[in-house]
Amino acid sequence: MKKFMQVAIAEAEKGLRKKAGGPFGAVIVLDGKLIASAHNEVIKNNDPTCHAEIQAIRAAAKKLKRFDLSDCEIYSSCEPCPMCLAAIHWAKIRKLYFGATRKDAEDVGFDDKFIYDVICGTAKKKQVSVVQISRRECLVPLKKWLNLKSKTQY
Amino acid sequence: MKKFMQVAIAEAEKGLRKKAGGPFGAVIVLDGKLIASAHNEVIKNNDPTCHAEIQAIRAAAKKLKRFDLSDCEIYSSCEPCPMCLAAIHWAKIRKLYFGATRKDAEDVGFDDKFIYDVICGTAKKKQVSVVQISRRECLVPLKKWLNLKSKTQY
Repeated sequence: MKKFMQVAIAEAEKGLRKKAGGPFGAVIVLDGKLIASAHNEVIKNNDPTCHAEIQAIRAAAKKLKRFDLSDCEIYSSCEPCPMCLAAIHWAKIRKLYFGATRKDAEDVGFDDKFIYDVICGTAKKKQVSVVQISRRECLVPLKKWLNLKSKTQY
Repeated sequence: MKKFMQVAIAEAEKGLRKKAGGPFGAVIVLDGKLIASAHNEVIKNNDPTCHAEIQAIRAAAKKLKRFDLSDCEIYSSCEPCPMCLAAIHWAKIRKLYFGATRKDAEDVGFDDKFIYDVICGTAKKKQVSVVQISRRECLVPLKKWLNLKSKTQY
């Protein structure tokens, strides 16, 4: 366990040196073997979705040629933000090891804890104004999906 | 408003026809102009992170060459899952229009509502087993980030 976390920490350090993004690293492991390792690249890629866990999941899925990583484990140098925790669920990963906490991330300037609070309805401020429109029209593709005879559910 | 949601719905329909992924579409708008539109491509790309909103955010950030989309609005044919809602926050988008709900998505076989429940601690089952290790070592890159004199906070 510690060995893979050290790789995740080394990735975080590499990202720091390269000024690629926030100081975070992640690693995907399958059957005790490292499949993918990544660091945050939000700044380098100009892409707000390039957190370490997302990058590692994308790299592992590409390498394994499948979106189902249910036989993999993920190591993250910091508790995943809600984007990454949800991505871990969508990837069907069953085990997550993490090091620092969302509070530790907040203490060095990142919004992880705030976004958790927003999602759970306990945030004291609001960043995104949300409006629901056109539900009836938006249900049409959902119903078509439900009625598809042959489809890949994920 | 309705006009851009119709583009999002058309993207959802396009994704369905191509069997690219789930029946979802999203659009990013800046100053009343369409900047990016996308559909879910989880199946096509073998990538569990390729939800419509993530694809649209990535495309818009690439086009605008910046990770800060605070002057943009997003339209999604379905309420964003926690991955996408968090990504919208990281992208600093201020306005979200959505159509169908997380319950509508659940009704056609998607885990959006379950993942919300997991993140908020109200889920009745557990998919991911979570273990914290090595916090002290993982704090090292965070402290280095805090002490960096020149950095881009996001």
